[in-house]
Amino acid sequence: MESKKFLLTEADIPTAWYNVQADMPSAPAPMLNPATGAPMTADDLYPLFARECARQELNTTDRWITIPEPVRDMYRIWRPTPLVRARGLEKALGTGAHIYFKNESVSPVGSHKLNSAIAQAYYAKEEGVTNLTTETGAGQWGAALSMAARHFGIDLAVYMVKVSYHQKPYRRSIMQTYGAEVIASPSMSTRAGRKIITDTPNHQGSLGTAISEAVELAMSTPGCKYALGSVLNHVSLHQTVIGLEAERQMEMAGEYPDVVIGCFGGGSNFSGIAFPFLRHNFSGERSTRFIAAEPESCPKLTRGKMRYDYGDEAGYTPLIPMLTLGHAFAPANIHAGGLRYHGAGAVVSKLKADGLIDAVDIAQLETFEAATLFARSEGIIPAPESSHAIAAAIREARRADAEGAAGRVILFNLSGHGLIDMASYDRYYAGDLADYTVPDSQIDAETAGLREV
Amino acid sequence: MESKKFLLTEADIPTAWYNVQADMPSAPAPMLNPATGAPMTADDLYPLFARECARQELNTTDRWITIPEPVRDMYRIWRPTPLVRARGLEKALGTGAHIYFKNESVSPVGSHKLNSAIAQAYYAKEEGVTNLTTETGAGQWGAALSMAARHFGIDLAVYMVKVSYHQKPYRRSIMQTYGAEVIASPSMSTRAGRKIITDTPNHQGSLGTAISEAVELAMSTPGCKYALGSVLNHVSLHQTVIGLEAERQMEMAGEYPDVVIGCFGGGSNFSGIAFPFLRHNFSGERSTRFIAAEPESCPKLTRGKMRYDYGDEAGYTPLIPMLTLGHAFAPANIHAGGLRYHGAGAVVSKLKADGLIDAVDIAQLETFEAATLFARSEGIIPAPESSHAIAAAIREARRADAEGAAGRVILFNLSGHGLIDMASYDRYYAGDLADYTVPDSQIDAETAGLREV
Repeated sequence: MESKKFLLTEADIPTAWYNVQADMPSAPAPMLNPATGAPMTADDLYPLFARECARQELNTTDRWITIPEPVRDMYRIWRPTPLVRARGLEKALGTGAHIYFKNESVSPVGSHKLNSAIAQAYYAKEEGVTNLTTETGAGQWGAALSMAARHFGIDLAVYMVKVSYHQKPYRRSIMQTYGAEVIASPSMSTRAGRKIITDTPNHQGSLGTAISEAVELAMSTPGCKYALGSVLNHVSLHQTVIGLEAERQMEMAGEYPDVVIGCFGGGSNFSGIAFPFLRHNFSGERSTRFIAAEPESCPKLTRGKMRYDYGDEAGYTPLIPMLTLGHAFAPANIHAGGLRYHGAGAVVSKLKADGLIDAVDIAQLETFEAATLFARSEGIIPAPESSHAIAAAIREARRADAEGAAGRVILFNLSGHGLIDMASYDRYYAGDLADYTVPDSQIDAETAGLREV
Repeated sequence: MESKKFLLTEADIPTAWYNVQADMPSAPAPMLNPATGAPMTADDLYPLFARECARQELNTTDRWITIPEPVRDMYRIWRPTPLVRARGLEKALGTGAHIYFKNESVSPVGSHKLNSAIAQAYYAKEEGVTNLTTETGAGQWGAALSMAARHFGIDLAVYMVKVSYHQKPYRRSIMQTYGAEVIASPSMSTRAGRKIITDTPNHQGSLGTAISEAVELAMSTPGCKYALGSVLNHVSLHQTVIGLEAERQMEMAGEYPDVVIGCFGGGSNFSGIAFPFLRHNFSGERSTRFIAAEPESCPKLTRGKMRYDYGDEAGYTPLIPMLTLGHAFAPANIHAGGLRYHGAGAVVSKLKADGLIDAVDIAQLETFEAATLFARSEGIIPAPESSHAIAAAIREARRADAEGAAGRVILFNLSGHGLIDMASYDRYYAGDLADYTVPDSQIDAETAGLREV
């Protein structure tokens, strides 16, 4: 019987992260200090982020960055994760393609987010930080950082988008079980929050309000730093353990991916699976296709504009050169909360603009159809976010069949399981979900006035 | 750095289950046909169960029963599961004991229940069964059988205790995502259900009502069989993959357990971890202690009577020689729904009566305290059921320290994660949970009139 899972041992957990910035044929434009318009320096970032995270953010020279042993030790709680040949899905599709997935859903919090949460909490601890703040939308990032902060003995305050705080009580409970303080945002605990609440009494919150509150708390509290779960270079860096493990596991399977797919919100899991394989495209050894799968209702990679934009709605962050729908863009209320973000990180935006990676946008109903097929054929109920990658993989398998390309190798990242997202599945089966296409006029209006990169 | 996880490969998944009935020094009394009072035969069980399950149930001679290759193949979706040295918990306790846990929570449905669900669905399929029925309380068993039945192309109807159906909508959704039909019990779909509803219009259901409905549907529908998730011998048999893997993994760790612990509802996960190690006690090679950890509010092993009793409240099943609180015993509404069962299987009851295993009963608040400590020190939020095993392991570690027994090796089974049980944690942190001790008079009254074994 052929192997289904390809398993590494603890000794095989990568010892260094892969820094794609060192290898890019053409570097992205620098982030800008919004006050001065000058390129951001590590000194500009220090007040907000742990020092080492700020350094990694701007590191364009070191290809490999050593994973500190305490981080690697904590990775051993669940890493290495399995690479799985999706024979059940292949059979259900009747495809001749070979479909593999990297199963990041086996982490104790159910997603890949721990890979960076642990690193960020570790660096904070090493630098004497006593408190961290962050924001969370659906709650995956908040849950991961809660676990990591507790492990390193750091207190954590999570600003959770108010509508999620009430609609996703399980994720809130998970954070509290790990000992984090969870505050529904907008809240009365910050100046920014108070202003929003007094201006708009029933404001249900957004990532923008939550980031503003978390940043304000970090900036106004000695010993306190801020941590972000996606978009930034150092977060993508930490996630490359996914692709580095997958690379070795594909070797065990005796294949190499023709197509690599990740769902796309801010970029953390896509970058994690893609960048290590992308380096072999850079070197000319390979010509793998990379596909970022984003929601039709939040199509920054497929339809966004390349502009300098803020990372948050309130405009507190540096200006990032990004494919964006505008920092005030309000995505339709799709259930893949982790993908409802207006922009892509600078590196992914640049790679997309240079034609080194592709993107597809996928309608909500197609993602739930794919999720159901996957659950019934592979046994794992995927997170709504990850279902975008599954749907893209199914499209690619069908394309391979149409092209007569039997044996084409498709690899996607299963970034998380959906066991805490069952309410979304309920709504899908009840017929309560719909697709939503963003009008061009909205994208034009939201990005008007932003400076071109 | 010493290893934290001990991982096997797919080739190490056991090829045979261990049948403890072949090795017991003293066999349990037979189950009785309630109509005739005669010992049950396989022929009595066939109408209800798949033929091979009925055979396994009564097999007292074959020590090893080959795991069919399609079952083993499906085990490969998540097996072998990790054995973990709980160094974080050891440190948090400051104990000199060595604590290990077998992590069955990594299954796609989050618990060990799949080990038997797959086997039962496979045998049913092989025998031409088109439909299965079962009952579920908290939903772990129902979710597992839903996934397994879908895999083998069998339709499944799950009678879910009505109060859980409404309180645990995520577990219901999981079953539906796998394609099962889920009916709140009592329902109008069976004679038994209609009678209960008309007699007691607001009946919230119990495992008793759900078993009655599932059994009635199976008995009255051609091609339909019934599957049970615990209590019976063939279910315990299938769960022995847990202990067999753990045995090899303890060898990798270079240790052998002095104490083996599982939480206890009907016996499936306790038997799974314990029986393979118990065989070395039978042979005289070892003298490991075995501890079944049950809720204080449902103390059949520590305080129940050894009687012939029904497996269900309505009295439709064979009479089982069991430690029981009486088949009409209504446990307090503790949150470990999977442990709210009135009796223990015949084999475990006999082993306990013969002094070959021990049991402890643990108060609810102690289990949540243990669960929180475990989540914060090991990173995994445990199911409320599994938290009973954790609490018992913590007691044993403290006992070892008190006895000066540094290096005592304690192994427990983490039967499932708690990510779908966060509402229980919420109530614990809110101070809404309490302990409940069953009065002797209640046990005496509920077991009065039952025939002694």
